[in-house]
Amino acid sequence: MAHELELLSEHRCFGGVQRFYKHDSSTIGLPMRFSVFIPDTATAGTAKAGRIPVLFYLAGLTCTEETFMIKGGAQRLAAQHGIMLVAPDTSPRGAGVPGEDDGWDMGTGAGFYLDATQEPWSKHYRMESYVAGELHEIATTTLPGDAGRAGIFGHSMGGHGALVLAQRHPGKYRSVSAFAPIAAPSKCPWGHKALGGYLGSNPEDWAGHDASLLMAKSKCPFPEGILVDQGLADNFLAEQLHPHEFEAACAAAGQPLTLRRHEGYDHGYYFISTFMEDHVGFHAERLKAK
Amino acid sequence: MAHELELLSEHRCFGGVQRFYKHDSSTIGLPMRFSVFIPDTATAGTAKAGRIPVLFYLAGLTCTEETFMIKGGAQRLAAQHGIMLVAPDTSPRGAGVPGEDDGWDMGTGAGFYLDATQEPWSKHYRMESYVAGELHEIATTTLPGDAGRAGIFGHSMGGHGALVLAQRHPGKYRSVSAFAPIAAPSKCPWGHKALGGYLGSNPEDWAGHDASLLMAKSKCPFPEGILVDQGLADNFLAEQLHPHEFEAACAAAGQPLTLRRHEGYDHGYYFISTFMEDHVGFHAERLKAK
Repeated sequence: MAHELELLSEHRCFGGVQRFYKHDSSTIGLPMRFSVFIPDTATAGTAKAGRIPVLFYLAGLTCTEETFMIKGGAQRLAAQHGIMLVAPDTSPRGAGVPGEDDGWDMGTGAGFYLDATQEPWSKHYRMESYVAGELHEIATTTLPGDAGRAGIFGHSMGGHGALVLAQRHPGKYRSVSAFAPIAAPSKCPWGHKALGGYLGSNPEDWAGHDASLLMAKSKCPFPEGILVDQGLADNFLAEQLHPHEFEAACAAAGQPLTLRRHEGYDHGYYFISTFMEDHVGFHAERLKAK
Repeated sequence: MAHELELLSEHRCFGGVQRFYKHDSSTIGLPMRFSVFIPDTATAGTAKAGRIPVLFYLAGLTCTEETFMIKGGAQRLAAQHGIMLVAPDTSPRGAGVPGEDDGWDMGTGAGFYLDATQEPWSKHYRMESYVAGELHEIATTTLPGDAGRAGIFGHSMGGHGALVLAQRHPGKYRSVSAFAPIAAPSKCPWGHKALGGYLGSNPEDWAGHDASLLMAKSKCPFPEGILVDQGLADNFLAEQLHPHEFEAACAAAGQPLTLRRHEGYDHGYYFISTFMEDHVGFHAERLKAK
């Protein structure tokens, strides 16, 4: 299926091209924006009809499709490894849900990468189907991503999204990593509010969207390992993130996990950009880029 | 003289520390903000009592002290080379000049790195004295920069600032480079408006603040060369930037200049970040970092 994309802007960057697109999303039922970085390897006549590995990045609360491309410093590394980068927005925009703009941790800018089941969110707030379905398809058909060589990573809410989507869609993402993920949303205030609002008040309905609970029921879904970086000066660490829950679940599941705790680093992009090289390299190795 | 600095925020970044400061500027007569990146080499007991090379970055129109640190991708390189980075805001804020917020190319966010001579600008709009005087002193006394190993670079209006301040303050900056500088402000609309407004309507008063006219009267002020990068898809190139004027002046002055013109690159930080590695490396070599 061909997807009609409106090119909003295009910038040459690290020998590749940085693009911002808008399209009418059939999944969301509203226009959506996303960003792409395509290294020149995609047009330089490489193997597999020019298709190249694609790495999806899911951003955190309040971010947009621009945040990662402006602050992450990943294009240099994607160009080196011959990887395409794709970053969606963090929620539908203009869904018209009463109160969706009232807080920064639910609604606009806070879609949590799940499909809401509760009215009135369920009509448009379908970020899981959007990211793992429509956007994945766009990236690997209309754009030059290789569906067989896709990885996913993200930050905070987007780290939650990456760890959850990778587990819920086996085979779709060959590699997964995260920066300071909300690793156990069933056990933190952000998760209680968002999962409760989008999925209803029964905690049993949340388990399928909790990276640690999903892992606890798995048997080593990613034999090549998972990489998570966490700053120890992160203001949200104690109350919201709970990486130890994911660590314990991985241990129980026999899932190799490299969880690095970094003295002094906080929750923002000064932390993320510092370790971006390790993450893009981690995915490149697993996606057999180059 | 000790300077009282208010630390607004601090973030660990690439094994160093990213800081944002506010202080009561005696030069500007108002509170000013600036940003600093200090690599760990500054505290690791290096030579010269821990003082390290310092590289000042001047940002373009509408930017703040945050822009470069968020978008430039320079901290990784500064950490590698053991260089401190300092970026001031682009103008006074809240000077109370009637109309200072009306346009984006003069007034707030557009100080042009000069000392205004015209009322009512002249009271607070003194960015040259601020950058080359007060901020330089703060960076090399209160902060661990080495006054004998300082360089300067910038983008657009800040490229103009770097090329002009380096020439107007011999010996203060040992290395200078620019991204897409306003290289001949006497000959472009931005320059006419800003120089005319800040310095008065007599073009003879502008010559001292025009990088190309200054160079035309010089004899190789920077024997170790000047580096300028310019994108050829830059929307402002034809009307506002005029790098060929600076190129001709350098040729006449016997000033070695590496002016690189890059096919497809535009005026923004996707362009700047692409070539940041070359610029920080250029300064590091001249400042004999490491």
